[in-house]
Order: sequence, then structure tokens, then C-alpha cells
Amino acid sequence: MGDPKKTTIVLFSGDYDKAMAAYIIANGAAAYDHEVTIFHTFWGLNALRQETHIPLKKGFMEKMFGKMMPRGADKMGLSKMNFAGFGPKMIKEVIKKHNAMTLPQLIEMAQEQDVKLVACTMTMDLLGLQREELLDNIEYAGVAAYLADAQDGNVNLFI
Amino acid sequence: MGDPKKTTIVLFSGDYDKAMAAYIIANGAAAYDHEVTIFHTFWGLNALRQETHIPLKKGFMEKMFGKMMPRGADKMGLSKMNFAGFGPKMIKEVIKKHNAMTLPQLIEMAQEQDVKLVACTMTMDLLGLQREELLDNIEYAGVAAYLADAQDGNVNLFI
Amino acid sequence: MGDPKKTTIVLFSGDYDKAMAAYIIANGAAAYDHEVTIFHTFWGLNALRQETHIPLKKGFMEKMFGKMMPRGADKMGLSKMNFAGFGPKMIKEVIKKHNAMTLPQLIEMAQEQDVKLVACTMTMDLLGLQREELLDNIEYAGVAAYLADAQDGNVNLFI
Repeated sequence: MGDPKKTTIVLFSGDYDKAMAAYIIANGAAAYDHEVTIFHTFWGLNALRQETHIPLKKGFMEKMFGKMMPRGADKMGLSKMNFAGFGPKMIKEVIKKHNAMTLPQLIEMAQEQDVKLVACTMTMDLLGLQREELLDNIEYAGVAAYLADAQDGNVNLFI
Repeated sequence: MGDPKKTTIVLFSGDYDKAMAAYIIANGAAAYDHEVTIFHTFWGLNALRQETHIPLKKGFMEKMFGKMMPRGADKMGLSKMNFAGFGPKMIKEVIKKHNAMTLPQLIEMAQEQDVKLVACTMTMDLLGLQREELLDNIEYAGVAAYLADAQDGNVNLFI
Repeated sequence: MGDPKKTTIVLFSGDYDKAMAAYIIANGAAAYDHEVTIFHTFWGLNALRQETHIPLKKGFMEKMFGKMMPRGADKMGLSKMNFAGFGPKMIKEVIKKHNAMTLPQLIEMAQEQDVKLVACTMTMDLLGLQREELLDNIEYAGVAAYLADAQDGNVNLFI
């Protein structure tokens, strides 16, 4: 059999549709017994935010970012045809109609399949996000850890 | 010589300029005897739409998506400086001036070079796109087929 | 030890945050002794523009593109929450606060670490950019040279 194949995804984007694509590929690769890592950086970190407001001590800029960015996967907008939130409603409608999975469901499935979900600590600092605000059972690392995974990766994507 | 090299591209974007980049890399790789696959998903499917309106039975949401999305490569907008359609005109102008290839020409060339053009069936369902609306001589597959190609790929990109 | 690992990045995007991600990964990979290439194409070329206006003979379209596109890394906008230039100010503020590196500093560091910075000659022609306008000590090449690097790459990304 040899070593398992590896898939790594940098999820930079904070768009619902792009994050869906990332998690669909990740779940597919995990089903094929790949070792899969999603490294969430910049706006991609929003997919890992908890929906409920967690009161934390923050500076002014950190509060601003915290308020302006979507709180969790379900609140994210589309990369195209967002139409002030109407586009995401349409997408969620057709997902339901076709019995496909929503982004929060895809994330849950990824966790069940042991996809390694990593939050980029450097961009957490920049955007003022703290561990208490993010999902449980994720890992925290920097670009060095990402590269250590990716340099042996069979499929490496930046989304 | 060994096995041929492989290039796979996920074309997620529905932007004219990003699709141009995807097809330029694909055509270049095909010229270097790579086996090349472009897997069109989400808005990238629009590059495969036929220009003419094909009357088909569709539900309300599917009709909405069908109307709002560009019908074919030539109708797509730019990722930057779109300016309500003025940007694409500028790009097409300079393409002509420099004897470069337009996106429809790049797609035609890819088909002549046997680049495998695949439409993602799952997102076709979501966006309500049917086979009758898409170009001839393309393939239909899901994420499993993409991963089977990509895991042996030398160059794998998400665009 | 064997051959050094290789990282290649196509920088298509002209966004400050995406270019930051590209250069952070590139600098990280260079620190791990990878051979690193960033291939700047389309709007990504703007990261290589000099800040000062260089008077050059140009046609009408080329002048238009030249005026509309940001002149250098420091002038680039954000992919999200740009808010007419307020977003970049916020990002630069938090970068300073956390002693992180700005995009111009990351580019300088990449040059010091011998990251190969390449400008795509085909899209330079399309956008009317000339060598006199770009940074010193960069290389000029087309898609063939990119593919020659990428087909042996361990980590290949499109940003």
C-alpha cells in the first residue's frame, strides 16, 4: 500500500461557495483515505468562528474586524451574485432541494472524517481572533507547519 | 520516457481573466505533452455554456440562476476593473491588438489539443444547468473523478 | 539530501491580502531551502510596479490600464472589506501593531532570500506594462518557463 496520499488546502477565502468547494474536495479526499489538512488563513478563518458572540477583551481594531466579518460558516457570503445576501439564500435553497450538504454540515463531516482543521495563528493575531471564538477540536499553527505538510502533498490547493 | 506528466485545474471562477489564465496554462501544458484536465465547477461551468438560449424545462430557482449567469465564455466579466462590462471590452481590444487569443479561441484550442474538459455534475444540479446547454465533447464527473486525476498530477491548481 | 524541494506560485491576484499570503508562503518555503518562484501574471504584475511614475510612450489603452491599476504593492486594495481604501489602512495598522511585515517588506525579503520573481511577458503586453516600470532584479518569462518549474514542483499554488 505504501504511505497514504496527502491533500492540503489553504482556505484563504471567506466566501460560502469557495469554502464549500474546499470542504467538498477535502471530504472527498478523506473518503479516499488521503491525509487531509485545511489550513485556514485570513478570511477563511471565518469558517471556523462560532455563531454565538463570545465576549472577549479586544482592542478597537480587533473589535472592528470582529464585527465586520461573518460569525461562522452559515453567515458567509458568495464570491459571485451575492446580491446583499440573496445569493446565499438561493444557494442554501437549492442545496436543500437537492439534498446536498450545507457548509456547516460539510465542516462537521470533515471533523468526523479526521480532516485536520488548522487555524493560522499569524492571521488570527492580525484580525484579532482568539481561540475562544473558534470551533473546538481544531489545531493552531503557522506557515512552517503548513509547508511541512504541503511539501509531501499529492494535491495542494489554494482556495 | 516514463509516464506522461499530468496537469489538473479546478476552474471554479466565472471570470473571463481567470478562465483565460486557466486555459493558457492548460494549453501550454498540453503543448508539453502533459495529460491535462480542466474540472469546471460552480461559476466556472459558465465557460462551457453555449451562447444560444436552449429552451428547457426548469424550476424557478434554476431559471433564475440560468438568467443571471453569463451564457458562455464570451459573456463573462473580469475579476478586477469590470466597470459594468467596460473592462472586458478593453481586454478583448488589447487581445486583438496583440494577436493574442480570446477565451472562446483558447477553449477551442484546448479541445483540439485533447485537453479533457469536465463539467462537475454536482454543481450542475445546484445551479440547474443541463447537458443540452453545455458545449459538445465534454465529460461529466464528480469530485471522485477529479481526485483520481489530481492525486497523480504534477501540477494541480485551483483557479 | 537529494534535490532541493521546489515551490512555485502563480500570483494572478492584484489584492494586497492575497499577495501577502503568496509572499508569506514564498518566504517560508525559501527559509526551508526550497527553490521558490513567484510567477506574476495579470493583476499580480502590479505588485512588481515601481511607485514612482515612469514616463513612457504608450497607446491609449495601455495608458488607461496604467492609470487604473495600482502603482506598486503598497497601493493595492483588499480582496474583502476594501471599503474604498479603509480596509488596507486597517490591515497596515494591525501589521504595524503586531510587528508583522508589510507587503513591500515581504517582497524585499523574498528578493534577499533569492526567491525568483518572474513577470509574465504575455500579460505585460496585454496590460501595456514595460520593463522600465517594474522592480529591478526580476526575470521575464512566459507560461512555458512557468510549467518547466511547476512540473517538478512539490508545492504549486495559484493565488
